[in-house]
Amino acid sequence: MMGRIVYLDGQYLKEDEAKVSIFDRGFLFGDAVYEVTAVINGKLVDNEGHMIRLQRSCNELQIALPVPLAEITNIQKELIKKNALNEGGIYLQISRGSAGDRDFGYPADVKPTLVLFTQARELLNSPKATKGMKVITTEDIRWKRRDIKTVGLLAPCMAKQAAIEKQVDDAWLIEDGYITEGSSNNAYIVTQDGVLVTRPLSNDILHGITRKALLELAEKEAIKIEERLFTAEEAYQAAEAFVSSATTFVWPVVEIDGHTIGDGKPGNVAKKLREIYIELATKTAE
Amino acid sequence: MMGRIVYLDGQYLKEDEAKVSIFDRGFLFGDAVYEVTAVINGKLVDNEGHMIRLQRSCNELQIALPVPLAEITNIQKELIKKNALNEGGIYLQISRGSAGDRDFGYPADVKPTLVLFTQARELLNSPKATKGMKVITTEDIRWKRRDIKTVGLLAPCMAKQAAIEKQVDDAWLIEDGYITEGSSNNAYIVTQDGVLVTRPLSNDILHGITRKALLELAEKEAIKIEERLFTAEEAYQAAEAFVSSATTFVWPVVEIDGHTIGDGKPGNVAKKLREIYIELATKTAE
Repeated sequence: MMGRIVYLDGQYLKEDEAKVSIFDRGFLFGDAVYEVTAVINGKLVDNEGHMIRLQRSCNELQIALPVPLAEITNIQKELIKKNALNEGGIYLQISRGSAGDRDFGYPADVKPTLVLFTQARELLNSPKATKGMKVITTEDIRWKRRDIKTVGLLAPCMAKQAAIEKQVDDAWLIEDGYITEGSSNNAYIVTQDGVLVTRPLSNDILHGITRKALLELAEKEAIKIEERLFTAEEAYQAAEAFVSSATTFVWPVVEIDGHTIGDGKPGNVAKKLREIYIELATKTAE
Repeated sequence: MMGRIVYLDGQYLKEDEAKVSIFDRGFLFGDAVYEVTAVINGKLVDNEGHMIRLQRSCNELQIALPVPLAEITNIQKELIKKNALNEGGIYLQISRGSAGDRDFGYPADVKPTLVLFTQARELLNSPKATKGMKVITTEDIRWKRRDIKTVGLLAPCMAKQAAIEKQVDDAWLIEDGYITEGSSNNAYIVTQDGVLVTRPLSNDILHGITRKALLELAEKEAIKIEERLFTAEEAYQAAEAFVSSATTFVWPVVEIDGHTIGDGKPGNVAKKLREIYIELATKTAE
């Protein structure tokens, strides 16, 4: 990743020269929101959805956009060009900015900090997509406004780290006995009857942009969908399991807490949804 | 506050020159812990307690101390000197550091970032101590590991901001019907029978250094103490209410959700505890 050009508050900088004040509220309070948009063939995937969610996150926290959404998209495209990014993602973060000191209340007259950087990654030919992931379940200890996409991500980091230490790929989070979502993705199962089950939208989970697109595609494919709670035990018995996010699209899950899911190989629903999502994403990326 | 000298990773810098990488995990993930130590007469109050808690927070998150605790205290003292700080606080933050990119799992071979800065404030003659504070109650939406003192403070910021917008001083947080604590302080009531009530230690609240000292002092004063849950309704009916934290010591609470507490003036228990805590703190500061 060395040598990237990143964006910080109006400037395109070498990645090791991009620095924010120690008084930035993103650093002192986790007072910042973010989005990640996938890039395929040098083009942005479903970026409008990300921009709408970014605006919503900012609204919930009374953070003013530092530049209009259209200008953010210009910066995204400029970064793709400057870094010759063909495939991967663009991370963007808006923090409330720095008031030059530390105080819990929102400061008046502060200019939000805008940061963007690219991450080159294989998305279409990810090994996880063909082999599937192994996950563990762990308690969901996050705050209660998971619908706001903030950088307060320590709990998901701890969950992911716990997974790594158990030599699996990720963690699914459990609250009051039910799966909420993965550490940085939405979670789904397919029952033995072929019903696609995923948790309904609420403040308990992120309102995934890819989730929305997948449910629309599943409906067109006449896959029966139930948006409802499900337990780890139900997931162990499922025919399939998978996750979705902006940069994974669909990754099958083949093992949960040591229980093999289905025959231990990526399931047909997951494979089909991944295939048609990538088809749509490639066609509509811009 | 203009013109402070602050500390960042081995350097004493002008406050507007102290900057961290945009890839610092404190900025990207809220992956950082902090402490605030009060300063009276240019000396550190109860700093050993803060250092022990800092070590514990780091242990819980597998963050290695970037320098030994004794060296941190040397830096605190050097900052007091360089800024001629007589009264106020020293903020210190350790983030996991920057691995040069963004990934949820803990990076190997990363050097934690150490930041310290001073805040000059009137502690002994705070108007809040003599007039008392007004608070509202609001839902506690924080994560479930409030015993770890992390910078994931957006929920407390939102609560504090809600209080400011209602033209009161602070918010008390409520979970499952019971007060947990204030937005950045521990919460107490004194019943009509003179019993000092505060929530017992658990992962639900910060293990306040000042809280510990106050309970020891209260015991010496033969004040009856009950560490148990209490509701907002019980607080409305209390004889007194107050908060404690490192830099407020004890601040009486005279109004909760519009209900006058006692006779609407700082109570005797709060005043006594503040007085003897300040006496002890002044004597033992170093």
